Amino acid sequence: MSIQQPTFELRDEDELSLELIEAQYALKQSRDKKNAKSVLVLVSGIELAGKGEAVKQLREWLDPRYLRVKADAPQLLSNNQTFWQSYSRFIPAEGQIVVMFGNWYSDLLTTAMHVSKPLDENLFDAYVEQMRAFEHDLQNNHVHIVKVWFDLSWKSLQKRLDEIDASEQRWHKLHGLDWRNKKQYDSLQGLSQRFTDDWFMIDGEDGKLRDQSFAQYLLQTLRELPEHQTKVTQKWQQAAIPKALLAPAQASLEKEDYKDELRKLTKKVADTLRYDERKVVIAFEGMDAAGKGGAIKRIVKKLDPREYEIHTIAAPERYELRRPYLWRFWSKLTDSGKITIFDRTWYGRVLVERIEGFASTVEWQRAYNEINRFEENLVDSQTVLVKIWLAISKDEQALRFKAREQTPHKRFKITEEDWRNREKWDDYLKAAADMFERTDTDYAPWYVIATDDKYSARIEVLKAILKQLKAD
Amino acid sequence: MSIQQPTFELRDEDELSLELIEAQYALKQSRDKKNAKSVLVLVSGIELAGKGEAVKQLREWLDPRYLRVKADAPQLLSNNQTFWQSYSRFIPAEGQIVVMFGNWYSDLLTTAMHVSKPLDENLFDAYVEQMRAFEHDLQNNHVHIVKVWFDLSWKSLQKRLDEIDASEQRWHKLHGLDWRNKKQYDSLQGLSQRFTDDWFMIDGEDGKLRDQSFAQYLLQTLRELPEHQTKVTQKWQQAAIPKALLAPAQASLEKEDYKDELRKLTKKVADTLRYDERKVVIAFEGMDAAGKGGAIKRIVKKLDPREYEIHTIAAPERYELRRPYLWRFWSKLTDSGKITIFDRTWYGRVLVERIEGFASTVEWQRAYNEINRFEENLVDSQTVLVKIWLAISKDEQALRFKAREQTPHKRFKITEEDWRNREKWDDYLKAAADMFERTDTDYAPWYVIATDDKYSARIEVLKAILKQLKAD
Repeated sequence: MSIQQPTFELRDEDELSLELIEAQYALKQSRDKKNAKSVLVLVSGIELAGKGEAVKQLREWLDPRYLRVKADAPQLLSNNQTFWQSYSRFIPAEGQIVVMFGNWYSDLLTTAMHVSKPLDENLFDAYVEQMRAFEHDLQNNHVHIVKVWFDLSWKSLQKRLDEIDASEQRWHKLHGLDWRNKKQYDSLQGLSQRFTDDWFMIDGEDGKLRDQSFAQYLLQTLRELPEHQTKVTQKWQQAAIPKALLAPAQASLEKEDYKDELRKLTKKVADTLRYDERKVVIAFEGMDAAGKGGAIKRIVKKLDPREYEIHTIAAPERYELRRPYLWRFWSKLTDSGKITIFDRTWYGRVLVERIEGFASTVEWQRAYNEINRFEENLVDSQTVLVKIWLAISKDEQALRFKAREQTPHKRFKITEEDWRNREKWDDYLKAAADMFERTDTDYAPWYVIATDDKYSARIEVLKAILKQLKAD
Repeated sequence: MSIQQPTFELRDEDELSLELIEAQYALKQSRDKKNAKSVLVLVSGIELAGKGEAVKQLREWLDPRYLRVKADAPQLLSNNQTFWQSYSRFIPAEGQIVVMFGNWYSDLLTTAMHVSKPLDENLFDAYVEQMRAFEHDLQNNHVHIVKVWFDLSWKSLQKRLDEIDASEQRWHKLHGLDWRNKKQYDSLQGLSQRFTDDWFMIDGEDGKLRDQSFAQYLLQTLRELPEHQTKVTQKWQQAAIPKALLAPAQASLEKEDYKDELRKLTKKVADTLRYDERKVVIAFEGMDAAGKGGAIKRIVKKLDPREYEIHTIAAPERYELRRPYLWRFWSKLTDSGKITIFDRTWYGRVLVERIEGFASTVEWQRAYNEINRFEENLVDSQTVLVKIWLAISKDEQALRFKAREQTPHKRFKITEEDWRNREKWDDYLKAAADMFERTDTDYAPWYVIATDDKYSARIEVLKAILKQLKAD
């Protein structure tokens, strides 16, 4: 599985420990700085090869206060949860090291080896590719990934199985594969050959060398962490601004017609959402005062609050800024129930963060593909994603801003910042155009609803949801 | 269930909204300030009384960016999870309002009404009392609790059931009780009478008045949030310092005897932990350099890292400081598996926080009972809690500090702060004495291991674990 492997020799343990701690502290001190990083160590391999011992030894050599070991028994991959979902909460923050002993690879191998339903090789390879892509995105977002495979020959494995005592045997039996079965062993080894070539292989034969190789490899990694990419390599192709955004519809619905249609549609949306077996995520973006809040109110009109959750997204908190920008959405989706509505979303990366410079050029330019992969993972896991952009004209926005300012209980909705954003109207149009160009996918298309008429906008939103749920 | 109920009349909605938003912003701005608060609204009641509508309406009147509605279908209380465990992550941070629609009371009622195994009334009352106590502790830790019951007469309920459509009927049937059953309705009403008298009752008959009563009650609450308690009312009785702490044992184990015994005990501890069906939490406190890390290393010697998690507790992060001090431990326990080891614990509240003044006198004096309740909840939920205090003499500490300073890879363990803490040696002894006096309970006794001999200490730790697991 690996093309070029570093080799390590035994060193003085105290010196190694000292150097590890120094490297760990340097990482810790990078927090909130320009080249801040975190390190995620994924550990996998043959049972009894000594993964556990190596991780324990590492904990002795490092400062344990700043090392988290997250170790779970493997779980089967499921078709309604992305492979990263149950682990996303434990993705390290800047400055941290997390060892995941029990991770998406152990889940994949367990699933592949599952006796009643073994995975076919194509599906296995597709998963490996998805994992590689996910890790690539983590790396770009400053979570450095280290993957270590602990290997052990069949003969040594059998010998070790003979030697361990009953309670350990029982434990290994409960949590692993049948390690007495040569065919299973061989097919596991075969599968691990299909992993990508960035795994570091450690031979579990010699305990001391095994532990030191693991620690020295981590040390080397900590010392050679790549700098954040800042160089813009591609020439940016600004997309053309869709006509609808430049000239939103002006036709307005009669109040009576609106009310009739609204009644029918809110009911149909509620029924459809309820009867659909999938999870549904509805994501709103659009200009300020375009009517996101009002549209959401109509979506949930015939639903009970126990059926949905609404997340109104504000600027990230400091602890969120220390992790990949998608992290705060991963965790919201992990807790979520059947229907989740986002009033502003992860697209902030390519909208406000692009325009205000909170994300560097490299970062926002890279984000489109990252977001596409994130959304594809969700959709592949039985989630329907409805993305809605609400557009109004600049004049209409001015009218609504002023109306808000003149209504005491709506004044909170409008601040100096909104007026400042308005000055960047054209930048937002450009950013939106690029976003549509790059993230309007088959699995998660954009619904652009451009009208100065509030009633029409709300009706269109409901229709868009029905359409994406294939219920229109 | 309530002795004195405020009454509200219909008001101008826009004015009400404005006042709510102002109160919400005042709360938000209290964050990180002297009288910072959060508000947790628990909503329960009769189905179709309009809880959902009232919560939705509240969301319209408030600034939705700073209101989180957490709404889950009720779940049965289980005997291996505390009633607060699945909700603890959603306890609001300072400045926030969270509405929990679906909370420990809805779980309790659902459990009590569960057809195959209804709860008996004594057990029901015991739960209500535990919940009251938990909420009391939340309040003292700046999470203000608002409890609202939405009521509806049998006749109106039946009428509403007649009127709702099929998809709503189906949803309510899936998630609730049988609301067509008069006997069930009556027994639910009977149970709710057993709640404490701090619930605000809202009649669900009139929709407008219902929504406004809910909102106006919250407004009144927000305006009348109590100041943090600062007045010390009790005269503090300093406990006598246990002799063992003043004169730790000096006898030392021979290395060979130690090794023999260690081998036997690590194996026995591993076996016992593995075969016990309960969760196990092992909590370490003690003077700096007393050997907590070394003891932990021996506990896990014969275990696989997938069997346990070790939390090394450092100073809380800012987002943790915005919540009750126990919150960060609640969440660690929620994620945890079978065996969880804490290197320093929630007792920091009555040790370092007391001594350094991070907790006020009222706060640390109150904490003993809070901690006892927290631990009792855990133990009642099939968790074994082993609390270990490691004591050494002041001279021995000096020797170990110096040894650390002279060992390059151990130098990180010793900082200026450790030397400063050492100057407060006597304060720590006093704090420890008070802690033993007040938190050495039947369900979670302290094991005080006082010896200057590292080997003996490690052996005693293993024996203490076996003893608390009743396996010695």
